[in-house]
Amino acid sequence: MKAISILGSTGSIGCSTLKVIEFLKNDFRVVALGAGKNTERLAGQIACFAPELVAVENEICAENLLKELHKLNVKSPKIETGEMGLIKVATHARAEIVVSATVGAVGFVPTLRALEAGKRVALANKETLVMAGELMTEAARKSGAEILPVDSEHNAIHQCLRGEKRSEVRRLILTASGGPFRAKTKKEIENATRAEALNHPNWKMGDKITIDCATMMNKGLEVIEARWLFGFEASEISVVVHPQSTVHSMVEFVDGSVIAQLGATDMRHAIQYALTFPERKPGELAPLDLAKLGRLDFEEPDFEKFPCLGLAYRALKTGGTLPAAMNAANEIVVQAFLEDKIRLSEIPKIIETVMDGHQTQVVTNLEIVQETDKKARIETEKILERSFYAG
Amino acid sequence: MKAISILGSTGSIGCSTLKVIEFLKNDFRVVALGAGKNTERLAGQIACFAPELVAVENEICAENLLKELHKLNVKSPKIETGEMGLIKVATHARAEIVVSATVGAVGFVPTLRALEAGKRVALANKETLVMAGELMTEAARKSGAEILPVDSEHNAIHQCLRGEKRSEVRRLILTASGGPFRAKTKKEIENATRAEALNHPNWKMGDKITIDCATMMNKGLEVIEARWLFGFEASEISVVVHPQSTVHSMVEFVDGSVIAQLGATDMRHAIQYALTFPERKPGELAPLDLAKLGRLDFEEPDFEKFPCLGLAYRALKTGGTLPAAMNAANEIVVQAFLEDKIRLSEIPKIIETVMDGHQTQVVTNLEIVQETDKKARIETEKILERSFYAG
Repeated sequence: MKAISILGSTGSIGCSTLKVIEFLKNDFRVVALGAGKNTERLAGQIACFAPELVAVENEICAENLLKELHKLNVKSPKIETGEMGLIKVATHARAEIVVSATVGAVGFVPTLRALEAGKRVALANKETLVMAGELMTEAARKSGAEILPVDSEHNAIHQCLRGEKRSEVRRLILTASGGPFRAKTKKEIENATRAEALNHPNWKMGDKITIDCATMMNKGLEVIEARWLFGFEASEISVVVHPQSTVHSMVEFVDGSVIAQLGATDMRHAIQYALTFPERKPGELAPLDLAKLGRLDFEEPDFEKFPCLGLAYRALKTGGTLPAAMNAANEIVVQAFLEDKIRLSEIPKIIETVMDGHQTQVVTNLEIVQETDKKARIETEKILERSFYAG
Repeated sequence: MKAISILGSTGSIGCSTLKVIEFLKNDFRVVALGAGKNTERLAGQIACFAPELVAVENEICAENLLKELHKLNVKSPKIETGEMGLIKVATHARAEIVVSATVGAVGFVPTLRALEAGKRVALANKETLVMAGELMTEAARKSGAEILPVDSEHNAIHQCLRGEKRSEVRRLILTASGGPFRAKTKKEIENATRAEALNHPNWKMGDKITIDCATMMNKGLEVIEARWLFGFEASEISVVVHPQSTVHSMVEFVDGSVIAQLGATDMRHAIQYALTFPERKPGELAPLDLAKLGRLDFEEPDFEKFPCLGLAYRALKTGGTLPAAMNAANEIVVQAFLEDKIRLSEIPKIIETVMDGHQTQVVTNLEIVQETDKKARIETEKILERSFYAG
């Protein structure tokens, strides 16, 4: 029985992970859970899975959690707070697998520590690799830690590469649903509301990633993530729009053969694979019925309607700290969009301005990445303030 | 450099194989070619590839071949005739790989001999496995010979199974184009002409297999072939209709994940893979462009419109000599259809009559299979004669 820690247990991926563990309870158990402010949900998870350790955002959250646990009449596990709390969850001595599923940059250092500690990391937090792919993969290499992708696209590529040689791969082909605005005009996208942007056609996910899907920045981040997970250059990673999200991604080989992984649009597939690899275990989801689906469509991505995709390719090609700066700017502007402060079309414009002003450095250590992240956030906030007063 | 023998070198697969060898001429050379009556084409192949040995159907063909070679001013290789000739091609001492690409039962014994001799067999002749899957796989097991499927569906499944465990497979999913009559009514199929039946939407192939596609017997034969190549039961092999033939076939695993192989509809992909496995080498075909294809469709197969598919499942479930009897009956009725002697809708009816009258035996040796084949052919001819006089 393998012990698991989850960073971001109350989020979408965290909850799906717990469903998988519940289903495979003879194979896996929970030792530590890291959450943010959702203490009510965390208390319920503690009641079900009895972890030894949990982490919450701060002392107030810790107090709230104790109240919630008291209501449920559940004994409290050890409670830690802040980034240090997440790091303790990520490096728990008994944890063999760490599911990294926090949103944005907050999971960055804890995930790095898990890799340094030689844990298998089931990685859902793509920002981690976008910010510091070099540091993350180097840490994994040194400690012998495995990174198993939980993003459905990268999980698919991991499956497509089984039994294959890296040197025989011609390119990775990431599929993109195209999001809610795939078939909309540039004008319609410009005036899209928050509710429209949050209405993803295929996947039920958190708010931040759903907006990233609407701008296609999510696919851009995934291109960068693929570079670090699988070691291919920007020119060897392409994107095809596939509205049904049934083909989760593909690999094209030098002989022209394409291997694809298909499945239902439920994250439990990818999570389970990341936990059980190299084994496959019977899952609780209904099998894919292609005849019932009937039809799969494919089209070229539109870089003009979705400039974020091009920005991500630019960041990847330039390398160094630029992807981290882009990622930080994106987090801030997405939050601003979710708070109705800017329009959807302003997202790529502000990110581009931040990228244009960024002095790219080589990533040699954690501090450079953290400094970049911090500076890019401040810079983005400044631009937002200026445009707020201007608008 | 690996030496190759080809059984059926002047057919569709044989010619495609020679194109692949031409393209990969630093890796492969031809040592022996087996053909039938097409001595003009064979002479051209001898001029290009200089085999040490060739086989033709009979003495008259041998004389014709000599004349053709004389015209081309090409020195004759050693010429053998008949089944013994094909066996000599299949067991040529220097041949490491034998491409088995004759049509129908004629390649049966030569292919068995190649397997007994421990050669890698790149198998395009599915009838061989349908007739005597047990004997073939047992011979391969004993000698350590590999069977590499050249049929695009089985080749796809071979690729999908790379790096996977057999015990983790839930089912094989063979794709079927549905042939030229997929969208036709039962009535329209009944009155289909020879030309309509020969007009396959996606693949350019020989006449016999093209008619098999029109009746979907081809898919039925492939279900049986899959059983022997991969060791799954009838209940673990399903068929989905996919008109574009872009997804060549799929494997569904116990965790619900589906791995698919996609490619252009050109047999050179599968042939090259069968020759170069476990390596993949750059091929000469343009890569697949899914965005350009735009759309892939899937639907359930219609067992009522295409009764041959159900007959094949029945033969597989019963086992023993029944698949060989079915295969023999099919060869005869397809030939009769190609000679305008029967209507397309009579094909399954006559095969079913032969199957109903067949006394199934266990396959313990080659002779039982050959006897079954012979008797079923005679029985089918008798039914054809009766219906001819009746009609």
